[in-house]
Amino acid sequence: MTSTSSKTDPALRKVAIVGASGYSGEELCALLDRHPSADVTAVFSRQHLGKTLGEVMPRFSGLKISSLVFTEADPAKVAACDAGVVFLALPHGVAAEYAVAAVKAGKVVIDLSADFRLREAAVYADYYGGEHPAPELLRDAIYAIPELSRESIRQSPLIACAGCYPTSIQLPLIPLLKAGLLDPDGIVASSASGVSGAGRKAAVDYLYAECNENMRAYGLPRHRHLSEVEQQLSHAAGHKVVMTFIPHLAPMNRGIHTTIVGTPAAGRTAADLKKALLAAYASDPFVRIRETPPETKHVSGTNFCDIALYDEPRTGRVVILSVIDNLVKGAAGQAVQCFNIRAGLAETEGLM
Amino acid sequence: MTSTSSKTDPALRKVAIVGASGYSGEELCALLDRHPSADVTAVFSRQHLGKTLGEVMPRFSGLKISSLVFTEADPAKVAACDAGVVFLALPHGVAAEYAVAAVKAGKVVIDLSADFRLREAAVYADYYGGEHPAPELLRDAIYAIPELSRESIRQSPLIACAGCYPTSIQLPLIPLLKAGLLDPDGIVASSASGVSGAGRKAAVDYLYAECNENMRAYGLPRHRHLSEVEQQLSHAAGHKVVMTFIPHLAPMNRGIHTTIVGTPAAGRTAADLKKALLAAYASDPFVRIRETPPETKHVSGTNFCDIALYDEPRTGRVVILSVIDNLVKGAAGQAVQCFNIRAGLAETEGLM
Amino acid sequence: MTSTSSKTDPALRKVAIVGASGYSGEELCALLDRHPSADVTAVFSRQHLGKTLGEVMPRFSGLKISSLVFTEADPAKVAACDAGVVFLALPHGVAAEYAVAAVKAGKVVIDLSADFRLREAAVYADYYGGEHPAPELLRDAIYAIPELSRESIRQSPLIACAGCYPTSIQLPLIPLLKAGLLDPDGIVASSASGVSGAGRKAAVDYLYAECNENMRAYGLPRHRHLSEVEQQLSHAAGHKVVMTFIPHLAPMNRGIHTTIVGTPAAGRTAADLKKALLAAYASDPFVRIRETPPETKHVSGTNFCDIALYDEPRTGRVVILSVIDNLVKGAAGQAVQCFNIRAGLAETEGLM
Amino acid sequence: MTSTSSKTDPALRKVAIVGASGYSGEELCALLDRHPSADVTAVFSRQHLGKTLGEVMPRFSGLKISSLVFTEADPAKVAACDAGVVFLALPHGVAAEYAVAAVKAGKVVIDLSADFRLREAAVYADYYGGEHPAPELLRDAIYAIPELSRESIRQSPLIACAGCYPTSIQLPLIPLLKAGLLDPDGIVASSASGVSGAGRKAAVDYLYAECNENMRAYGLPRHRHLSEVEQQLSHAAGHKVVMTFIPHLAPMNRGIHTTIVGTPAAGRTAADLKKALLAAYASDPFVRIRETPPETKHVSGTNFCDIALYDEPRTGRVVILSVIDNLVKGAAGQAVQCFNIRAGLAETEGLM
Repeated sequence: MTSTSSKTDPALRKVAIVGASGYSGEELCALLDRHPSADVTAVFSRQHLGKTLGEVMPRFSGLKISSLVFTEADPAKVAACDAGVVFLALPHGVAAEYAVAAVKAGKVVIDLSADFRLREAAVYADYYGGEHPAPELLRDAIYAIPELSRESIRQSPLIACAGCYPTSIQLPLIPLLKAGLLDPDGIVASSASGVSGAGRKAAVDYLYAECNENMRAYGLPRHRHLSEVEQQLSHAAGHKVVMTFIPHLAPMNRGIHTTIVGTPAAGRTAADLKKALLAAYASDPFVRIRETPPETKHVSGTNFCDIALYDEPRTGRVVILSVIDNLVKGAAGQAVQCFNIRAGLAETEGLM
Repeated sequence: MTSTSSKTDPALRKVAIVGASGYSGEELCALLDRHPSADVTAVFSRQHLGKTLGEVMPRFSGLKISSLVFTEADPAKVAACDAGVVFLALPHGVAAEYAVAAVKAGKVVIDLSADFRLREAAVYADYYGGEHPAPELLRDAIYAIPELSRESIRQSPLIACAGCYPTSIQLPLIPLLKAGLLDPDGIVASSASGVSGAGRKAAVDYLYAECNENMRAYGLPRHRHLSEVEQQLSHAAGHKVVMTFIPHLAPMNRGIHTTIVGTPAAGRTAADLKKALLAAYASDPFVRIRETPPETKHVSGTNFCDIALYDEPRTGRVVILSVIDNLVKGAAGQAVQCFNIRAGLAETEGLM
Repeated sequence: MTSTSSKTDPALRKVAIVGASGYSGEELCALLDRHPSADVTAVFSRQHLGKTLGEVMPRFSGLKISSLVFTEADPAKVAACDAGVVFLALPHGVAAEYAVAAVKAGKVVIDLSADFRLREAAVYADYYGGEHPAPELLRDAIYAIPELSRESIRQSPLIACAGCYPTSIQLPLIPLLKAGLLDPDGIVASSASGVSGAGRKAAVDYLYAECNENMRAYGLPRHRHLSEVEQQLSHAAGHKVVMTFIPHLAPMNRGIHTTIVGTPAAGRTAADLKKALLAAYASDPFVRIRETPPETKHVSGTNFCDIALYDEPRTGRVVILSVIDNLVKGAAGQAVQCFNIRAGLAETEGLM
Repeated sequence: MTSTSSKTDPALRKVAIVGASGYSGEELCALLDRHPSADVTAVFSRQHLGKTLGEVMPRFSGLKISSLVFTEADPAKVAACDAGVVFLALPHGVAAEYAVAAVKAGKVVIDLSADFRLREAAVYADYYGGEHPAPELLRDAIYAIPELSRESIRQSPLIACAGCYPTSIQLPLIPLLKAGLLDPDGIVASSASGVSGAGRKAAVDYLYAECNENMRAYGLPRHRHLSEVEQQLSHAAGHKVVMTFIPHLAPMNRGIHTTIVGTPAAGRTAADLKKALLAAYASDPFVRIRETPPETKHVSGTNFCDIALYDEPRTGRVVILSVIDNLVKGAAGQAVQCFNIRAGLAETEGLM
């Protein structure tokens, strides 16, 4: 599954990044700088116009990418740039406009925002508020978790990368629901995320002294990511899945730890489920099925998703643990993995 | 409920602490040092024999308590000391021996360990391994969360304080189960604890560089605290409760955040449950029912338990959040609250 | 030194807090809530007008202070309130206006800002920029570190509490310079502060994900606090002291660790200096001279300043370490200590 | 300076790691796994004998290196392995025995311990205690900071990599002292290190709950690293340098922040010093001279050393700030940089 496609498209190796100064954008810069086959030819920003990437982000000073000068973030300019692939690391609602222009200009768009993850504009409006900014593009967009959607990634002009929490929930659940091994009712997922998940925006709630030595739930009664998770789980299960999802903010920079409780389908055992997970990801380089509880530090700075499944005979349920780095497998790394697939490269290129 | 009993017992104001050098013991020292009515007359330790408390724990230097010299921790010596109340801040399996000697000597024992929390020695053996060290004392011991067991605390010679996770789970659930408002089946509790919960013992797993920037589940498939939680919830519900409980280690010193998912009993609504919680704790000084998600920092260093309950109409469930400081309401503060009740003092004395 | 004055002034027990919602103000609220002799009768805020303190800061819910309603922060209203003492926990430049009005109204002002720490308006203008907002009040104001200025605190209408870094630097150095034991030339102080020192203001630089796992110097080439430190050290030494001071931001909520390198005066030894420190603070309840390196956790949440002095025979210098909690001894605790002295109470009241 | 040598030695591409399970060893594994030209052929351990690297360190599961089986750590076995280069990531005192055997067997040894950093066995005995374990090898060993000792690295069989603190101190100071621009007297260095610097050993002092929310100095009155720093600075200055160095433990996993105060040599200005630093490192890929205060997060996970120099006209001194990742430029990265030089590879290979 991870072998290089026979045909790689050289035009796709030139890439541009819009929104490089957020946490996901910064991670994208780091990953693409050391990617052997990608060539970052443009970075766009409103805030940092005219400065070099090295000036804005001192950690990049001295790297290849550091001398790139920020161009004005403007859909027309993005559409006119020489890159074949455009990464959008922008807030939801802002990305769509850029996607429309870039797709029209024939570019491949890899979108890290939520704008094209939902198939129905009405669900977007319900969860995100307001009209969908570009409903006409929804049918062209594909929802992308590489392990679960390689074929569509290879052909789509608009790749909507899954959100961070959703990636940690779907990787363990989709194979189980698809195979009818897990009861689609009664699923409960409780996740904890590092604070970089809140983005690099000035807000008292995310100050160091507010988040350190603190743990809190948020997003109740329904976090926005529920919409894409239920859409995808329902698709896999073949009927509507309604679940409980409670995100928490944990005092760390990076990492998502997700704990899922569910019930094996009638006649199925925890052993069946574990076997299915092992089989589903046997040839996937970035999903590791574990015998011991996965820890976020095991995947920190990597594109791995580690999963463990525990039987709970006392209750007849199973407990599934999964961890990712929210900025890598949950954002920039997943986007690069999509890029590798789309550009016909080895899936692990620049990621291991 | 919190008013001072008419009769206070002066003999009970002299207190001793066995195991003062662990995290719970250290917190006990801090609380009792500034307690207006308690007089710490002895501290016992094997490790620090002959040193003063101020030498062993520099933070206490200059406080009243700092010049106390550690006496050899030995059940006979503890039994012979002049204190009326003995606090045991010892590991499970070690506390029992001291409890036996002190109770026999007519002292009131407030035990922070797990030794006397379970009513049945067989359950202890199952969860903690090995024979119960003093089964003959089990019928004298009472399980203590002050808000739920004031009357028995007033009369018992052996007060077994609830564990940290169990306190955060039972305070919201017991009133609901007692009133038949919550379905006793299908309860899922996911908790995150600060690392002080693991105790002050040299172990690679709890090194700074292992725990910082990391989040992990542990104790699977069944953590020891499940035994006391199920015992008490079953008692409240009037029949056997079997639940899922998954503890996690979070990168912070203190605090427990518990997220519980359950289903209202048939015909009951989330509003009914919330009303019941408000009523149950209307006159309790240390339980606060909140309108917004409680955060562990709100209760850090305090004896409060903050609880919020959210309706989840999409699933028909409720989500209950509760937070405590594991070393205060989850250990030393709870013990002092028990002491206040037992000694006929105002329940908040030394704790607010 | 710490005994209660024979005459205490009951009018001074009613206190008001302006700027309760910053970190120092919040700490003041916590300390004054449990202070046996202080009665907080008013809290002022622009932002939170009309809300209760418990609503704005959930941690205070259920405490005495929590039902206080924020009054509009306006100098005239502060001057007209019924409190005898007004605590100002405001940014520099903002506090002065309130101080002028309150002093004119006959109140005692305890100011946590920098507005009245410098004797000369020109130095203020040089370090803080712009004209001093109330130069006419400078001669009434006294610079206050309680251990070093008890007499003036007892008589002044305007008590300018020392800054956080300055407290950690002056407590060890002033007695040495006064006694001529330390060479006033060549002093180097390097400090690390927790992030709460930057205040509760929305700014990207103080976001969790910017500060966690990070250490940085700032304020170069001269931090504002240098102005008050050099003023006070020069006064103690009897001639102009010019020193190096480099503050750093450390990934913790609270605490300042200061490391000072200096040279004993000709003919003096490290032992002489240590003896002098022990003598200077022999009867001070909040300064502890230590034999081992002090740690910020030893003083966290307390009003202590811990100091250790090490001989460095290789270089002929001494290394002095001092630690405080920046929000307590470095701000709110110091202010309450001043209050205790001014109101004729025991100096430790509400602080131990 | 960073160009590939014309002659690379293929025999040196096979490498072995002794002590892979400490923090530096783990970082070495990570760096060498993705190094394009290095081939890890053996890992040695006493503790983990027979297990795979992936079993012992779950983060490596799925990487090339993960299936390597730990061989018994024994000098004879290390000497007999097929690697041309042996990395020693062992405690001081333990490494020497392995170095002796491996050098005798004709291998190149890259030692991360302190065993061969000092030229004189007597200084070793003075600072580290006990006899030097292999004094006969001291004359073959070279002290290595790649930027300062490339030529000797190319020829030596025993490369003693500089310590973490020493690297952060010497990179800024050596060029200044060599050029006579900095007064060799009166230098003061104050450093803060992340807790991984203490190693992966079970000890209460390094528990999470002891180090989090805490800052402390240690190693007083003279830390072991002073010996190698003074040796090298003296060599550069051409006469004996005696300095003050105070290390601190900061609550973070990784990173060293060093703040140095010194005085320009007579007739020299801060501008001269800055110019000299810029010139000294103009073509060095891993040293960046900065205009703003460097932060440890800018170099976290990288082999960079960032340096800034500030003039302090008030005192006539300069303040020099430098930051590294203690596990990379301070240990494993520096070792790989040495390896690249020794093996005739591009100096940045596997490190950017």
